[in-house]
Amino acid sequence: MTYERDNIRRMQGYVWGEQPTDTDTCKLNTNENPYPPSPAVQTTLASFDTGTLRTYPQPTADALRTALAKYHGLGRENVIVANGGDEGLRMAITTFVEPGSPLGTAQPTYSLYPVLAQVHDAPVAESELTDEWLPPPDFARRMNAAGAQLTCLPNPHAPSGCLFDAGYVRDLAGELDGVLLIDEAYVDFVDPGLNYDAVGLLDSIDNLLILRSFSKGYSLAGLRLGYVLGQAGLIEPMLTKTRDSYNVNEFGQGLGLAAFLDRGHAENTWAAVRGARDRLADQLAALGFSAPPSQANFLLAQAPARSSLTARDIYLALKERGILVRYFDAPRLKDKLRITIGTPEQNSRLVAALTALLT
Amino acid sequence: MTYERDNIRRMQGYVWGEQPTDTDTCKLNTNENPYPPSPAVQTTLASFDTGTLRTYPQPTADALRTALAKYHGLGRENVIVANGGDEGLRMAITTFVEPGSPLGTAQPTYSLYPVLAQVHDAPVAESELTDEWLPPPDFARRMNAAGAQLTCLPNPHAPSGCLFDAGYVRDLAGELDGVLLIDEAYVDFVDPGLNYDAVGLLDSIDNLLILRSFSKGYSLAGLRLGYVLGQAGLIEPMLTKTRDSYNVNEFGQGLGLAAFLDRGHAENTWAAVRGARDRLADQLAALGFSAPPSQANFLLAQAPARSSLTARDIYLALKERGILVRYFDAPRLKDKLRITIGTPEQNSRLVAALTALLT
Repeated sequence: MTYERDNIRRMQGYVWGEQPTDTDTCKLNTNENPYPPSPAVQTTLASFDTGTLRTYPQPTADALRTALAKYHGLGRENVIVANGGDEGLRMAITTFVEPGSPLGTAQPTYSLYPVLAQVHDAPVAESELTDEWLPPPDFARRMNAAGAQLTCLPNPHAPSGCLFDAGYVRDLAGELDGVLLIDEAYVDFVDPGLNYDAVGLLDSIDNLLILRSFSKGYSLAGLRLGYVLGQAGLIEPMLTKTRDSYNVNEFGQGLGLAAFLDRGHAENTWAAVRGARDRLADQLAALGFSAPPSQANFLLAQAPARSSLTARDIYLALKERGILVRYFDAPRLKDKLRITIGTPEQNSRLVAALTALLT
Repeated sequence: MTYERDNIRRMQGYVWGEQPTDTDTCKLNTNENPYPPSPAVQTTLASFDTGTLRTYPQPTADALRTALAKYHGLGRENVIVANGGDEGLRMAITTFVEPGSPLGTAQPTYSLYPVLAQVHDAPVAESELTDEWLPPPDFARRMNAAGAQLTCLPNPHAPSGCLFDAGYVRDLAGELDGVLLIDEAYVDFVDPGLNYDAVGLLDSIDNLLILRSFSKGYSLAGLRLGYVLGQAGLIEPMLTKTRDSYNVNEFGQGLGLAAFLDRGHAENTWAAVRGARDRLADQLAALGFSAPPSQANFLLAQAPARSSLTARDIYLALKERGILVRYFDAPRLKDKLRITIGTPEQNSRLVAALTALLT
């Protein structure tokens, strides 16, 4: 006898990136920051009294919300903290999407969106991205025609790394009938010279949510911490109704705050990753790969046309050599590899392996 | 403009117990264990290298699942670990209840169940508990008639502390058309002499889920950790489909395992709480309170009939004296106080305050 709902039985779950247990593997497959978190995280942990674990955590992570709000020039009512950005996405879908109504996105996209939609028994309304990995000109019209109550777009885009500017966010939010969620999981790696700032739009736009993550920018993927920014009318129902009562544990709240207050450490890792990203892009180009300009901590590299090896061949050959990159057997992606920017040593090891394979 | 779904706009969120920030307050309102967690938790934390936070946690908490399965005499496929028992409840509802179909329970009950049902846009099918705080004889028939795909019952019952035996669980599961979830958040405080064991039923019953929590029994409410046991057919869709991809952070997995392996420490706290519970029950009875026999770490005490003070009056008077207990303004509960068992010192302070108020 089967007890699960029909939509759950029909669906496939999320497929996470491989997690090798040895320490030798060069792990460039899940977009983790190659540098450790702020030393302030270790210091905070050293003075942590586990006796406090006896009691429930502060339900809404208010100390962290206050710090985040202050930094972003917003009120605490504009911030909700989540057990990872993934929980922020789920709460938004739960709050704004009626089961049966579609979740909007543009393909290819973060592979979790359609999974969360299926769990919610919501179809996915999707447009195809342009050759430049941008939503097509009629994107808002299509989402509105489909009745999308929530549209999610990663920016920088995953898995290409391409960035659209804040003016596009403003225009798109203005055109959409529903809520627009901009998933800024990788925004910390955007070149500061671009002056990208979608948070500044929140004052004047009532249907915009911005999702941030501590996983990459703050090297805290293992802590599970993210947050969502928006006008109080959007944040309040998530904060007081659809959020699990105590969703972020004491470590998430305390260590997340320590890492955030030592933002300088994180900023140094972002600068290092950006520098390495540009060097790796050049090295991959020299080997015949082509990759769109990335503002994230990864590159989507198309396998050299002149080689007899497919992207999948290269993925498997690298894996044999202890180097993991991400391969997606999906439209527009199956001829490409998503390569996380590692430390200079990791990137050199990758380039050496690719050079040996391809030349 | 309102963007949230109708069911979300209509509902009220969960109301959590008060969390005083001073350390003077005698906090007997949220059923926390009065003793700190195992010293093994502090030891594990002391050797924790925050550098590992850079990478994602093991997605399914397999080391902890393995230890839990072994202890319970089950396979790992029978265990899912959750970010607190509350997440276990939400995952079960998401997996087994079609929006629009009812969630079953018997009132009064854990106040989170109806909240989770409303988030899911599911009505609540409810029977009233008998005077002995047990489901009524025709409970299964009513749940089946309502079409309940999932029925949740806390055992020991919250907020009365009453326990039904495993034979009742077996019979009820056999009669129900849908899934039966027995919420054993307080089971660690059951007298061992009663030999209560519902987990032993899982071998032969395919529609039974058992929820456990680390919050009370292991003094780890601040860590957010719980788990669900059941046959693989029920666990698998939660584990691979409806669970957030990385729902339990590294601390939950690592410290939870340390606490579980030092079960002897926790067992000592359970014995201490049971002893204090029986003493406090006697003392409350001497003051004119009546409370059903509790197998949990709290007592549901009905205010003395001979006093001019209502339960609410007593709640407020205690609060003025720095003692927090839980008052529910709800049917069958508004003349009662739910009092968490504290340390002997806390319980004495409570009894002294009540004596001064009532005599």
